[in-house]
Amino acid sequence: MRAFLVSALLSLPLFSIAQDVTSVDQLDDQNAISELYRLTLTEGRSYYWLKDLCFDIGARLSGSPEADSAVDWAVALMQSLDLDVSKQPVQVPVWRRGEKEIGYYTTSSGEKEKVRLCALGGSVSTGDEGIKAPVIEVGDWDELEQLGREQVQGKIVFFNEKMPAENLYTFHSYGHCVKHRWGGAVEAAKYGAVGAIVRSLSLRIDPYPHTGSMHYEAALDSIPAAAISTMDAEALSAALHRGDEVEFYFRQTCDTLPDKESYNVVGEMRGSEFPDEVILVGGHLDSWDLGHGAHDDGAGVVQSLAVLDLFQKLGYQPKRTIRVVFFMNEENGLRGAKEYARLAEASGQNHIAAIESDRGGFTPRGFHVEGSEKALHMIQSWEHILEPYGLHQIDKGGSGADIGPLKTDDNVLIGFVPDSQRYFDHHHAETDTFDHVNQRELELGAASIAALVYLIDRYGI
Amino acid sequence: MRAFLVSALLSLPLFSIAQDVTSVDQLDDQNAISELYRLTLTEGRSYYWLKDLCFDIGARLSGSPEADSAVDWAVALMQSLDLDVSKQPVQVPVWRRGEKEIGYYTTSSGEKEKVRLCALGGSVSTGDEGIKAPVIEVGDWDELEQLGREQVQGKIVFFNEKMPAENLYTFHSYGHCVKHRWGGAVEAAKYGAVGAIVRSLSLRIDPYPHTGSMHYEAALDSIPAAAISTMDAEALSAALHRGDEVEFYFRQTCDTLPDKESYNVVGEMRGSEFPDEVILVGGHLDSWDLGHGAHDDGAGVVQSLAVLDLFQKLGYQPKRTIRVVFFMNEENGLRGAKEYARLAEASGQNHIAAIESDRGGFTPRGFHVEGSEKALHMIQSWEHILEPYGLHQIDKGGSGADIGPLKTDDNVLIGFVPDSQRYFDHHHAETDTFDHVNQRELELGAASIAALVYLIDRYGI
Repeated sequence: MRAFLVSALLSLPLFSIAQDVTSVDQLDDQNAISELYRLTLTEGRSYYWLKDLCFDIGARLSGSPEADSAVDWAVALMQSLDLDVSKQPVQVPVWRRGEKEIGYYTTSSGEKEKVRLCALGGSVSTGDEGIKAPVIEVGDWDELEQLGREQVQGKIVFFNEKMPAENLYTFHSYGHCVKHRWGGAVEAAKYGAVGAIVRSLSLRIDPYPHTGSMHYEAALDSIPAAAISTMDAEALSAALHRGDEVEFYFRQTCDTLPDKESYNVVGEMRGSEFPDEVILVGGHLDSWDLGHGAHDDGAGVVQSLAVLDLFQKLGYQPKRTIRVVFFMNEENGLRGAKEYARLAEASGQNHIAAIESDRGGFTPRGFHVEGSEKALHMIQSWEHILEPYGLHQIDKGGSGADIGPLKTDDNVLIGFVPDSQRYFDHHHAETDTFDHVNQRELELGAASIAALVYLIDRYGI
Repeated sequence: MRAFLVSALLSLPLFSIAQDVTSVDQLDDQNAISELYRLTLTEGRSYYWLKDLCFDIGARLSGSPEADSAVDWAVALMQSLDLDVSKQPVQVPVWRRGEKEIGYYTTSSGEKEKVRLCALGGSVSTGDEGIKAPVIEVGDWDELEQLGREQVQGKIVFFNEKMPAENLYTFHSYGHCVKHRWGGAVEAAKYGAVGAIVRSLSLRIDPYPHTGSMHYEAALDSIPAAAISTMDAEALSAALHRGDEVEFYFRQTCDTLPDKESYNVVGEMRGSEFPDEVILVGGHLDSWDLGHGAHDDGAGVVQSLAVLDLFQKLGYQPKRTIRVVFFMNEENGLRGAKEYARLAEASGQNHIAAIESDRGGFTPRGFHVEGSEKALHMIQSWEHILEPYGLHQIDKGGSGADIGPLKTDDNVLIGFVPDSQRYFDHHHAETDTFDHVNQRELELGAASIAALVYLIDRYGI
């Protein structure tokens, strides 16, 4: 195509040449990006990599033997692509779920109902006997404060705020509610509660509890905390609203061991012209211990690596250094991200851009951009090239937990935004499995990230 | 909000009034549409209606007792919304699958492999003994012609063209391949074949055969035709490419009975200002006989009715007549669509616009518009109102099979376009079940159609 256009230019008047030189460039970009999408849909390997990660290794919580296996898998996979591969040591917390949790409640009308629950990550054990106590429901922390120590002391607090259904972008609903999971045990302990149970952060009514991280404060008792399924939350709430007195029992045998060494896994392709300018693309290798960690964040990991696989298939030699990072310990500590950023700063590395994929392997919608207005406008100026692939939402917004620590005054951080409607159906639950990932949606995400990396590499930012 | 703005106008210079009157109107539209989305996500009933249709009735092929039940269900449901409801009689074909099909092949290397297959809709039976014959694979009709009668006579032809993976919009790939299903038996019979088996029209490799309509030509033998799963198509093709001679056996006991009376179901809300201007919104009530017909087209049916439910919840009285039509027999005859259009023309009805939802209950992307450039541009001029809801793709394109016969020189036909990546995973297969529909995606589709109907009702087209 280029050859044809160049020869065609020879007979054109001067003012047209400038125009056509521009359009040759545009045409090349459009052709290259079209080819990235064709390659991903016909020869993409993200889905098969994800299958191996999900079925050969499965869930891979930081500090677990499975996380160790995932590191080995990642190194071998990156080496098979002939990348420069390195392992970056990082100390990670080690929390173990222990035996399968047990939960039920009994009501003053004589019912006994089983509850599907799971310990929140980082929670203490209930001890072998479990905990049994009257349960009280609250919607928000204000309600807890109003109840006060008198009514809370010795009880189990049931945080039952629903994720708001009306937000189109479901992460906003998550952001609204996640404080109950993260801080519920702390708030309940302030008033003498003996345990905290939290409605799972899901927009569906279903039987699956969703785990996630929580924390304690040193000055307060560390009380056990668990998530219960939305279905059980509805039933428990109905029993309480009937005016029944309800006793809640749960047993979880989780514990925390000393920190352990694990690794970020880094693979890169050196830039041909500006090797010191790094474009990072990454996701997190660890996952929660339920399900496969397929969407969270197996998808992001394989999509990140696919960027370089697609460049190789395209025969594209990047001008800048493209570095793929599989971060360790996003879920319960962010230790990998912090260590990566610390080392990058210490060695004066210049990350001109970082792109994170950690919102599931769903059909692409766009990017959220954290950086200067100028950088945002530059990326938005590429919208006409990206639109044919469904990438319409290029907006200012948060990028991602793992790349967050890399923010400087000069660089740009970008979060890949797939469609969010189904994400919280599976997030941190046993249903986050390979069969809930669609091959084409996953692959289109890989090509979308590759397209943006390609444009940033060509034009800088 | 309106009250505030009107009073604020009083102190503005004249040229600003016109601007602000416009923005008051725009604000109202934006608020109304925002409210439609809020209502659909918090109080929408599409998902629960679809649950009833899928679990209480299930698959509902034209002429089946289940299709009769679906008509009764539709009438009762529309009446519960206080619509003017009518049943429009239509004669439909009656084809029955008979017993569960059996298929296998044996190879000259001594293998015997079971094949998961299903009769294509409209196919003749193989007879009780089934058919056993050597099988030959072809990619396209040219190959069949090249083989000629000499090599085809007495054999079973295996049409194995893959749906092209590289098309972003999967319906283009379907359009490319569907002729083998629709016409494979005719083409094979031209050269004396005794049966036709067709690779299922799916982009996945999985074990589910996908049925669909086919036809015969009077001058040629009617030979039995079946779809085999993509997984079995791959295995069978591999055996043939190893150079094995392969005998294929299949048995299906389907038959066709005389036509029978069934119904389109129509419910409407009369317009307050222009009752003779009809805006139709519809989907098809019948489905294939595998699965639940959940995406195809239970989703379209409940979304169409939800438009009026949402208008009622919003307290919106349409100026034009909004008519919901559940068409009968889209899948294997289009008799309902033809009869509806015939009666509409005979009685001189003015359908200014018709919108069809028949591409699954997936996350909304936009609309395909069939009509004048002026109508297209008018709808595109609303893009800024629709964009926040993910409706970016408003393009010229085909609308839908059921509304197609309503085309005139003056009106506009519109197809609702959800994301297409997952549609053919389930299309016409036993996996087209309720559990593969996400509540939020379905509801967002309903609000998207309602938003467009609202705008057309307010401004005409």
